[in-house]
Amino acid sequence: MTQSGKLRMGMVGGGPGAFIGAVHRLCLAMDGDFDLVAGAFSSDPEKSRLAGEELGLDPARVYPSWQTMVEKESGLPEDQRIQAVSIVTPNHVHHGPTLAFLEHGFHVICDKPLTTSSKLAEAMADAVQNSGRIFALTHNYTGYPMIREARELVRSGQLGAIRKVYAEYLQGWLADKLEDSGQKQAEWRTDPERSGPGGSLGDIGTHAFNLLEHVTGATMDRVLATRTMFVPGRPVDDDAMALFEMSDGSNGSLICSQVCIGRENGLRLRVFGTEGGLEWDQEHPNDLRVHWKNRPTELRRTANPYLSAPALSLGRIPPGHPEGYLEAFANLYRAFARAIRNQEDLEDAFPTVIDGARGVRFIEAVIRSSDQGSWVEL
Amino acid sequence: MTQSGKLRMGMVGGGPGAFIGAVHRLCLAMDGDFDLVAGAFSSDPEKSRLAGEELGLDPARVYPSWQTMVEKESGLPEDQRIQAVSIVTPNHVHHGPTLAFLEHGFHVICDKPLTTSSKLAEAMADAVQNSGRIFALTHNYTGYPMIREARELVRSGQLGAIRKVYAEYLQGWLADKLEDSGQKQAEWRTDPERSGPGGSLGDIGTHAFNLLEHVTGATMDRVLATRTMFVPGRPVDDDAMALFEMSDGSNGSLICSQVCIGRENGLRLRVFGTEGGLEWDQEHPNDLRVHWKNRPTELRRTANPYLSAPALSLGRIPPGHPEGYLEAFANLYRAFARAIRNQEDLEDAFPTVIDGARGVRFIEAVIRSSDQGSWVEL
Amino acid sequence: MTQSGKLRMGMVGGGPGAFIGAVHRLCLAMDGDFDLVAGAFSSDPEKSRLAGEELGLDPARVYPSWQTMVEKESGLPEDQRIQAVSIVTPNHVHHGPTLAFLEHGFHVICDKPLTTSSKLAEAMADAVQNSGRIFALTHNYTGYPMIREARELVRSGQLGAIRKVYAEYLQGWLADKLEDSGQKQAEWRTDPERSGPGGSLGDIGTHAFNLLEHVTGATMDRVLATRTMFVPGRPVDDDAMALFEMSDGSNGSLICSQVCIGRENGLRLRVFGTEGGLEWDQEHPNDLRVHWKNRPTELRRTANPYLSAPALSLGRIPPGHPEGYLEAFANLYRAFARAIRNQEDLEDAFPTVIDGARGVRFIEAVIRSSDQGSWVEL
Amino acid sequence: MTQSGKLRMGMVGGGPGAFIGAVHRLCLAMDGDFDLVAGAFSSDPEKSRLAGEELGLDPARVYPSWQTMVEKESGLPEDQRIQAVSIVTPNHVHHGPTLAFLEHGFHVICDKPLTTSSKLAEAMADAVQNSGRIFALTHNYTGYPMIREARELVRSGQLGAIRKVYAEYLQGWLADKLEDSGQKQAEWRTDPERSGPGGSLGDIGTHAFNLLEHVTGATMDRVLATRTMFVPGRPVDDDAMALFEMSDGSNGSLICSQVCIGRENGLRLRVFGTEGGLEWDQEHPNDLRVHWKNRPTELRRTANPYLSAPALSLGRIPPGHPEGYLEAFANLYRAFARAIRNQEDLEDAFPTVIDGARGVRFIEAVIRSSDQGSWVEL
Repeated sequence: MTQSGKLRMGMVGGGPGAFIGAVHRLCLAMDGDFDLVAGAFSSDPEKSRLAGEELGLDPARVYPSWQTMVEKESGLPEDQRIQAVSIVTPNHVHHGPTLAFLEHGFHVICDKPLTTSSKLAEAMADAVQNSGRIFALTHNYTGYPMIREARELVRSGQLGAIRKVYAEYLQGWLADKLEDSGQKQAEWRTDPERSGPGGSLGDIGTHAFNLLEHVTGATMDRVLATRTMFVPGRPVDDDAMALFEMSDGSNGSLICSQVCIGRENGLRLRVFGTEGGLEWDQEHPNDLRVHWKNRPTELRRTANPYLSAPALSLGRIPPGHPEGYLEAFANLYRAFARAIRNQEDLEDAFPTVIDGARGVRFIEAVIRSSDQGSWVEL
Repeated sequence: MTQSGKLRMGMVGGGPGAFIGAVHRLCLAMDGDFDLVAGAFSSDPEKSRLAGEELGLDPARVYPSWQTMVEKESGLPEDQRIQAVSIVTPNHVHHGPTLAFLEHGFHVICDKPLTTSSKLAEAMADAVQNSGRIFALTHNYTGYPMIREARELVRSGQLGAIRKVYAEYLQGWLADKLEDSGQKQAEWRTDPERSGPGGSLGDIGTHAFNLLEHVTGATMDRVLATRTMFVPGRPVDDDAMALFEMSDGSNGSLICSQVCIGRENGLRLRVFGTEGGLEWDQEHPNDLRVHWKNRPTELRRTANPYLSAPALSLGRIPPGHPEGYLEAFANLYRAFARAIRNQEDLEDAFPTVIDGARGVRFIEAVIRSSDQGSWVEL
Repeated sequence: MTQSGKLRMGMVGGGPGAFIGAVHRLCLAMDGDFDLVAGAFSSDPEKSRLAGEELGLDPARVYPSWQTMVEKESGLPEDQRIQAVSIVTPNHVHHGPTLAFLEHGFHVICDKPLTTSSKLAEAMADAVQNSGRIFALTHNYTGYPMIREARELVRSGQLGAIRKVYAEYLQGWLADKLEDSGQKQAEWRTDPERSGPGGSLGDIGTHAFNLLEHVTGATMDRVLATRTMFVPGRPVDDDAMALFEMSDGSNGSLICSQVCIGRENGLRLRVFGTEGGLEWDQEHPNDLRVHWKNRPTELRRTANPYLSAPALSLGRIPPGHPEGYLEAFANLYRAFARAIRNQEDLEDAFPTVIDGARGVRFIEAVIRSSDQGSWVEL
Repeated sequence: MTQSGKLRMGMVGGGPGAFIGAVHRLCLAMDGDFDLVAGAFSSDPEKSRLAGEELGLDPARVYPSWQTMVEKESGLPEDQRIQAVSIVTPNHVHHGPTLAFLEHGFHVICDKPLTTSSKLAEAMADAVQNSGRIFALTHNYTGYPMIREARELVRSGQLGAIRKVYAEYLQGWLADKLEDSGQKQAEWRTDPERSGPGGSLGDIGTHAFNLLEHVTGATMDRVLATRTMFVPGRPVDDDAMALFEMSDGSNGSLICSQVCIGRENGLRLRVFGTEGGLEWDQEHPNDLRVHWKNRPTELRRTANPYLSAPALSLGRIPPGHPEGYLEAFANLYRAFARAIRNQEDLEDAFPTVIDGARGVRFIEAVIRSSDQGSWVEL
């Protein structure tokens, strides 16, 4: 810990032009749990150096590559070297640094999707298990208080036996061939070398998948799916749809798309059981509609005393003051810090490497089902 | 026409315990186009007699069966006998009276779904063509002004080439085994002898199907689907899901369910093209969200002067005074009257027997795809 | 009654260019309670004749003036002459025909506001009382099922002692000087000779006023108000605002405006008591938000079994099928018919001449308070 | 600046039981502009010490009182002592520390309302002017991107001449006598010794007041108002309502209440001009409805490229990822930092002491108008 009691954090990725790196930095700092003290911010050493400078880091701890970083940090005295690393690179650079940092005894928090193939995912899962270190995957939407409330409603049995699960994540930002314009985000996310075999599937489909497994506590057994490359010349899907069956006997649909003009981050989840149902929309995340048999629909809202204790624990401010994307994201960092410190915490406080491996299997199953036109097991 | 210039209408079905018969009566009367003057309101002669009495009809024109009705009405002088008949019976009694009334020269307006098999549907389509009479099918949701606006937006090309179509119709009223309680609606709708092979598929799935073909002007080519009987002992589906491909190269999903507790008549349509998109929800039918590339989303509302002429033609009152289900339904009756009177009218002013036959094919294709677990052509 | 058991209705006003006359005709016909058989549709005999012809009425019963109408109808045999009259003229022609028709034994249903001065309003109230006839005033928004639910929630004491009442009715259609364009509605509604001293106050302010007294069951004691003529050259208010105190110790605000561009018929009511609150918006009239202390907000919706019996009695179709403006309006006609037939019915089933007289006093009090800049008793 | 280039910040107030102190700490840290290095967190020295300890501060810089703090910090070397102070005490302890810290050359950011009387407010305004230091007042709602967009829409003239301004701030948390339960927030906010003469007026009415002046750029000239103490025994208003006239010829209403059960932080603003209008709701702060004459209403959303540059500058993440209360609040801290560093920035980037003094005059005018029942100039 730093003098102030903060955990010392390093970062891999998140240099110029990145979007998610800046988000991670805002979130790790929000609750005062971490100090960012080291980083390899780009595969280009000069870019990494500049990013570190801009962040005011000690130049000695801004590295030209994650390989150098893991080596040099390991060599620092225990009370100086980083305790954890945040990996915010494109998908194909999750596996390498995760294994290296775990092996050297560092805790790891990594952006999603976990990696680009089931084989690599299994290797990462093994590495986590063998290391005894904490590994968290930033499926950040699980950090919303009302998603936690939804999870409690389902898992407590209040909604009865679950029958239907509808998940969707609709965006419009890739409706045109943005990757040809030099936009860095679009570029790597539509390049299978870097994103893996799933385009929209990896970028947003796995979020919807993770959210529905997180809330229901059931696992997806098999899918009947189709995927499309709508924009000519794009080598990965920009749209996918899947019907699915769950381990608890429920079924449902998952749709994701990046060509729905006007949709921003339209992640929605609806769950219906034998006693009630719920509906949630990420763009208005503090509202949770809860349906009951023969009673009026309820509108539950973040931070109200009538919520379950786990949902309340994720709020920072009184009801009616909207908590947003960054606060939800930061809840994962807060939980990661507590896990490192061996503090008690919520069940399923953050997505794990197992969740991540399931997400990769989801991508692969959808692709296979789409190719075959038939049901495929996860 | 009656003295007052109204068209003389008869009704088949719609006796005690029926829901949709009363709706049809409200709607045929709303704009003063029709007088209900005759009817065979039940297969039980006494119930038919009582219904006629309650409606204040001339007892001589309240018949014990539709067979009697078609025979007797045909025998009346031309200026007295009915000019059109409204068929509002359970699905298995659409085919018989339609053929008989058409054959005797009456115009027919019939509730949906058209009938219980493609074979019967084809026979009905032939009968309409041979009769030269008007046949309208009450897929009533096409009567909403904002659905007409949506149709104009798509067909005018303003949204560009259509890529995605998401349709859904979620209800909760059959989440329990209501049919065992004596509720008449639930009873026949879950009885394949009367409803046909589709349960939720016929009752609400065909509405969603019709709406999406109506708005896009494209036809559904094939489906990859699954259906479920969630409530134990129910012999027909109470839930279905389909991925589909359309004739214009777009694809999408259609979900329908009658076990989603808390959903009332959640019919929603979303369409996205290369230039924009739209979203509509039947429960708030006067709002249409229209998305554009690089411009704020618009909220278009019924009866405003900025709407297309066809959308404006379907409103009755100034903007801000909500038009509801009955007004939309009555728009089909108004269009039916105009067609009988040979007045010019909107293109696709009401769903036809061809649309109805397509709906039956949709039901059959979903069932077959669900059974096979593979794509099935419509 | 007519042969069909319907009540015979006449109409005063509602000729070419009128908006509300057509609404009344749709609504009196909706439930089959009334047949329109006579009318004096315009102060211009030729226009009246044409309107009658268009409506398919017997020319002998289309009159050149309401004075002729009342005289001739009174002379018809009892089983032929009208039983009730619907007065849908501009405000300055409510008092005259009301008194005449009542005096000749006809029931009267009249558009709002009641009349143009408290003195005339008192005379009308006396006339109703002396006549023993039914008089209904079409403050149509009281006909919405969820307004009835709101009323039951307040009057049953479930919300506790009422503290706050916020009412508003915002429109934008008179933001420009529409009355100079020949638009007939704008013309008479901004002409104090015909509308009376209140412009927006009479047209929409009285609706908001009536609604809040209807729902709370309390009466407005005094107002602190201001009114504005925003559009240059307009001789009546197109905007008004009032703070007020109620007889039950609550207070609140009422704002009405016709210059709020983009607002259509933004009639909203919010009521808060010591135990809960409610919020309603006319543009989405089937949704009622109900707040409770320490419990989630409820979303109550038209036609659901959990509603109070009076609210349920005002619905026509199952939940989720939106009921609109016309159905709410027709609920007043249905209640008027039941009252004529001496059937039991809801308490406060329709606004009365007393309610109307209170509305006129409200207009006058707001004007006086606005002129004086101080509190004025109603 | 600290080594990392951050500004060194101190805090007065914000100890145990406080709500807003923790918010300020989250917000000053969010963008990495400030390091909290010193504080006098409570008037109770032991509580101050404990708070400092919990925050990990150097005990030498945790002071028993703000008087000690200002003295000791002034004595530190320039490169160590704080550069700015955040004052987050109850209202009656804004004036004292502000004057003292300004006098000693520190920049000040202070919670609202400015202070408890116009006289003190004037003194504070003078002190700011004489000091040449930066003073910011945390009317945090002005930090929302869509409020900035609203301001641009009005001030650019796009909405035409403004006619109507409706502001409201409704809460329910003080519907019962919470101050008797030991809840610290309720306690001081309902104690005129600490809150000043306004209860709801100071706590939330000034927010609504500030927001409407900020967005319209006009000043409130006079009010016609009333205030109420609904909860028995409460010595300050828990509810107030004001009609008002603005310097630009517009008028409107402002309502605030803390007894509206079910309302959380219902701060809403509506503005209507001769060409259009806008509507905003703090509980869904990323949505701005914009109305236009003869065109559909627009839904503008945070972070979209079609927004004005100033609105865009206040967003941190891509569209569709909700920004909340903390991000808006932090925008004031970011602007405060930029002002200290003499960087160019937005016009009206944060509320000033002048805005604060106007807020106090607003409170006093409402109280006087309420007592007199007549118009009162601000």
